[in-house]
Amino acid sequence: MILEHADIRIAPGANAAFEEAIQRGLSTVIAKAGGFRSGKVMRGIESTERYLLLIEWDTLEDHTPGFRESPQFAEWRAIVGPFFAQPPVVEHFAATAAQVSSPTRG
Amino acid sequence: MILEHADIRIAPGANAAFEEAIQRGLSTVIAKAGGFRSGKVMRGIESTERYLLLIEWDTLEDHTPGFRESPQFAEWRAIVGPFFAQPPVVEHFAATAAQVSSPTRG
Repeated sequence: MILEHADIRIAPGANAAFEEAIQRGLSTVIAKAGGFRSGKVMRGIESTERYLLLIEWDTLEDHTPGFRESPQFAEWRAIVGPFFAQPPVVEHFAATAAQVSSPTRG
Repeated sequence: MILEHADIRIAPGANAAFEEAIQRGLSTVIAKAGGFRSGKVMRGIESTERYLLLIEWDTLEDHTPGFRESPQFAEWRAIVGPFFAQPPVVEHFAATAAQVSSPTRG
């Protein structure tokens, strides 16, 4: 599993519309891509115009070049791109052995 | 649930020792903190000295001031702090409705 980590900044005041759009983009476009496992969007508490889009792919190649060079990438960007205040900063991460859950609630 | 997102840069060449240390710090110190749910560490693919520490807490206050002002914070920093190339950038995030899993594998 590979984590796609997209650090997103949106225009002020567009939170509700952006959250609706990215939910739609995730469920109608990204969820159908090859190698997609799961995706979620988190809203910044200190930085209210900052979002993290966290997507789990089977492999790095499923995201790039796979999804990035598919026709569906343009569909996705048409849905979410208008909200971006600047280009998202995207990097990928791999799991390490450091993972702990609370024994009672994790 | 609140996500603590710590963006960490370590000194070159210290990956294996850092990963051992942060796994130990997570399991021996952070996992015992009040309000802790789960924690994991992801290693950068493009930026090999970059790590994300992602911790789920019940509430923002469980992390700060809770854990941050407890005696255990010094224990944690004694374990992982020596590896930091610069102070970690820590912000908090809240879930949004935008969450999708693959129906077959998510």
